[in-house]
Amino acid sequence: MTMFQKFSRTVRENSSLAKMLIVFTVSGGGLVAYSDANPGNQMNIVNAADSYTKKKRVVVLGTGWAGTSFLKNLKNPSYDVQVISPRNYFAFTPLLPSVTCGTVEPRSIVEPIRNIVRKKNVDVHYWEAECYKIDAENKKVYCRSSLSTNPNETEEIVVDYDYLVISVGARVNTFNIPGVAENCHFLKEIEDAQRIRRTIVDCFERASLPNLSDEERKKILHFVVVGGGPTGVEFAAELHDFVNEDLVKLYPKLKDSVQITLLEAMDHILNMFDKRITAFAEEKFQRDGINLKTGAMVINVSDKEISTKEGKNGRSISTIPYGMVVWSTGIGTRPVIMDFMRQIGQTNRRVLATDEWLRVDGCDDIYALGDCATINQRKVTEDIWAIFNKADADNSGTLTVKEFQEVLDDVCERYPQVGLYLKNKKMHTLVDLLKDSKGDTVKESVVIDLEEFKLAFSQVDSQMKNLPATAQVAAQQGSYLADCFNRMEKCEENPEGPIRFRGEGRHRFHPFRYKHFGQFAPLGGEQTAAQLPGDWVSIGHSTQWLWYSVYASKLVSWRTRALVISDWGRRFIFGRDSSCI
Amino acid sequence: MTMFQKFSRTVRENSSLAKMLIVFTVSGGGLVAYSDANPGNQMNIVNAADSYTKKKRVVVLGTGWAGTSFLKNLKNPSYDVQVISPRNYFAFTPLLPSVTCGTVEPRSIVEPIRNIVRKKNVDVHYWEAECYKIDAENKKVYCRSSLSTNPNETEEIVVDYDYLVISVGARVNTFNIPGVAENCHFLKEIEDAQRIRRTIVDCFERASLPNLSDEERKKILHFVVVGGGPTGVEFAAELHDFVNEDLVKLYPKLKDSVQITLLEAMDHILNMFDKRITAFAEEKFQRDGINLKTGAMVINVSDKEISTKEGKNGRSISTIPYGMVVWSTGIGTRPVIMDFMRQIGQTNRRVLATDEWLRVDGCDDIYALGDCATINQRKVTEDIWAIFNKADADNSGTLTVKEFQEVLDDVCERYPQVGLYLKNKKMHTLVDLLKDSKGDTVKESVVIDLEEFKLAFSQVDSQMKNLPATAQVAAQQGSYLADCFNRMEKCEENPEGPIRFRGEGRHRFHPFRYKHFGQFAPLGGEQTAAQLPGDWVSIGHSTQWLWYSVYASKLVSWRTRALVISDWGRRFIFGRDSSCI
Repeated sequence: MTMFQKFSRTVRENSSLAKMLIVFTVSGGGLVAYSDANPGNQMNIVNAADSYTKKKRVVVLGTGWAGTSFLKNLKNPSYDVQVISPRNYFAFTPLLPSVTCGTVEPRSIVEPIRNIVRKKNVDVHYWEAECYKIDAENKKVYCRSSLSTNPNETEEIVVDYDYLVISVGARVNTFNIPGVAENCHFLKEIEDAQRIRRTIVDCFERASLPNLSDEERKKILHFVVVGGGPTGVEFAAELHDFVNEDLVKLYPKLKDSVQITLLEAMDHILNMFDKRITAFAEEKFQRDGINLKTGAMVINVSDKEISTKEGKNGRSISTIPYGMVVWSTGIGTRPVIMDFMRQIGQTNRRVLATDEWLRVDGCDDIYALGDCATINQRKVTEDIWAIFNKADADNSGTLTVKEFQEVLDDVCERYPQVGLYLKNKKMHTLVDLLKDSKGDTVKESVVIDLEEFKLAFSQVDSQMKNLPATAQVAAQQGSYLADCFNRMEKCEENPEGPIRFRGEGRHRFHPFRYKHFGQFAPLGGEQTAAQLPGDWVSIGHSTQWLWYSVYASKLVSWRTRALVISDWGRRFIFGRDSSCI
Repeated sequence: MTMFQKFSRTVRENSSLAKMLIVFTVSGGGLVAYSDANPGNQMNIVNAADSYTKKKRVVVLGTGWAGTSFLKNLKNPSYDVQVISPRNYFAFTPLLPSVTCGTVEPRSIVEPIRNIVRKKNVDVHYWEAECYKIDAENKKVYCRSSLSTNPNETEEIVVDYDYLVISVGARVNTFNIPGVAENCHFLKEIEDAQRIRRTIVDCFERASLPNLSDEERKKILHFVVVGGGPTGVEFAAELHDFVNEDLVKLYPKLKDSVQITLLEAMDHILNMFDKRITAFAEEKFQRDGINLKTGAMVINVSDKEISTKEGKNGRSISTIPYGMVVWSTGIGTRPVIMDFMRQIGQTNRRVLATDEWLRVDGCDDIYALGDCATINQRKVTEDIWAIFNKADADNSGTLTVKEFQEVLDDVCERYPQVGLYLKNKKMHTLVDLLKDSKGDTVKESVVIDLEEFKLAFSQVDSQMKNLPATAQVAAQQGSYLADCFNRMEKCEENPEGPIRFRGEGRHRFHPFRYKHFGQFAPLGGEQTAAQLPGDWVSIGHSTQWLWYSVYASKLVSWRTRALVISDWGRRFIFGRDSSCI
């Protein structure tokens, strides 16, 4: 470890101290200092009220799961919040696959962000603009609004911040495969879902035209889904239901020409789920006639055909004509994040690295959450020397079990991988871990030195896993961060986090801890698979009802809840609509 | 009158005879003759079944009010119907202004055309394509489908017909005013309404951006509606409600910057309505703060400003900046109709001229209805000689009242303007008309000659009026024509129409007669004006409920009915949504 690394880590760990200093300086300096420091502050027009200027300016980028969850849970009125996002609404993305086939209407799953924030006692301003540059040095973000009727005209907005919350999400990852960006449909935004819906009906109308050969008709009605993750699988299942429940009634002659193909590069679909769910899904798709091609890597997409590489050596290349391709595999980095990562030296990464308190590594007042960030979990072994020293209260150079138990809770909180390791190995306390490393014969009264201590933890770090890029993680991060902001002052005074092993005192906050509530994989035909906490797997019609009730309850407002439920009701009664709009 | 005109008129009047001949020839000739005559028939792929080929091929262009009403009412299974339209749905256009502000969702007012026709026992095929050329000589229509994913690729379809029903509607009329086509929004299609909705919210978002002067903000929030007809007035009223009921809650600071201007070239808005309605509407708009500018002709629309010419001499030109302009004035001719009119010599007309049976003048097997056509009502004076001769049973050269009464019903049916004239003049029978022309002293037993007869009718023709281009007219024409088609064979044998004054026998069918059920003009704030038959005027909240119930009952299907009613309910409970989608 270089001196520089050590130094920067110390600074980072002591950041709360530095921040307290800033807080006092700024509040002490008051209005004059503030307006002097920001002579060209473009926000002054809106925030001119004197009372505002004393407030800390929080800028939130993005109105997705993380940003909205942050805004919903922020209750401390001592902030002046500015939200910047190109979309003036929050979209309940887990229902996007339902929108593609008209099971749910697009408007039913969105809620205007102004509606979400307007009842709050916190000052929240929203600008419909897209941030294209973060200037961490001067604490400014540069945004662009493309709302003008004239597409060549864009408004530029520069916004100052005290705290920046980056929650811009991710974009689609095309893996630079040629033709994907031009010819494929994606499934990230409401507009994508609407386009897919129109394209499906367009394909059926095209296939209905006279003068077509059977072959051409089959080509037009060949729907290809790339990516066997939950979204791709759900879309393929929804499409199958849409075709077989609704479209065949209106296009009876086309029924036999429709083909749905699901391409997955790995050996199985729904990899992140339990094997039972994967097996059930693959079997159901086979029964439904959905053509499942695993181990197929897409290498090229032309405007008419999609080429895949199959087999172990990738020797067998096959090219199939298609009518529509939906690309739903992996997430990529947004340009603004890419640019920001270059600035702060986080190169060669896919997403921003943050610490366990969601602060971007190396930037004190910038937080990043959701799909654009990942927590860079500190390794126990990196801090092993500090932990040992802290625990060794009598400076004896050795650790008794009693001494170790004093810091045990803090270790478990600061390094969640320790808890995970114990759970996986079915150990009950850290003492078991120590025993393990010394062999089972060790007694409770045993004393260990640094080397033995290090050995005990050497396996632990291997259990670390990045959190998945899901709505659930983003929402929990948003509400965690809002909670930190709500109690910022209180926790400055009474830190509640674990001991700082490398510094003095305690961390201000508990680190973020993700709680997994399970995951659904709707499989069509009113059947859903669910993997619930404790590896509990549930598949079938009853799970579909669980899905309905969980999703209805998770919707952001009573309005969207009523709309989505009435959409489901409409669908049950009248089926899905197939007008080309 | 030239010999040619006389000849062509005689042929036209005897067309049913000619048509009967064709019917017998075709049915007699049977399958072989048919397929020989159509060696390159491109429809054979679809209509290959032997039984089909004996059927008369009816091609319907357009799925608007007229076309859909025709399809809904066509019940005779002896036709093979092909519907060609670029929109695969029927849209309930009177609710379009509600869609612009999200009071009703676009999907709630559309019904897939395949759904409308699929339960019928008539063979109906639908192609999503746009007709660009009608070849009356060879009885073919040329169509183009633009469904392909590749915008440069279009499918060409050629369809043969025995009967052609043209119901393609009209397009927006820009009166060649510069900048209108580029910078204005229109309100004819579902997509237009969706675009307007997005633009309204975009304007509010743009006006919310920081760094704007008050002037710029007011410019962006200046909504201009051009045209004081029912659509323009309803849109202005809806927009006012949307702003004041919903948007001000989310954009409270912008309330005072919003301005709605309604421009009308005439002296009053809602010209076609009773003066009481006009006065009420103008007063209500003034109270609501809608800026009403009558007598203002638009002369130019740039991307930022709209220029109008005002005053009697058009000397005063004013230019106002705007955020959005909605153009809702007059209807124009679609290119395919323009081209067809050139072919059949109907130049210098705005729409196709048809006879009272909706047949295009000069084209026996082509019918035109809805906004693309108008009935060229025959003048009584043109036929006065034939009527006189027909009535003069004893060839005495003079007409007794008794003789005249024999043909009276037929005259009234054949020339609806006669009935209209009597009604307006408060006369009870045609005899009163004759009395009128000879002075009030004349007795029932009087005898009149041709000159006196002509004089009596000379005033009558002046009462003729074209039917308005409304949904009501189109729908009635569609169902009238379907009824004629349903009873075609029966009426060939037993004609039920009025006497042919210029020919022998009777017309096959009664001529089309429009029945006016009244017209609504929603004025916002849950108030509507209605002009009902018999000049009954009703204005206010109760009329709004009449409007709700009439429109709900007129919707095309139970599905759309349920959806629209639930949309109204949603709006009452949750207000209108303002997400930018």
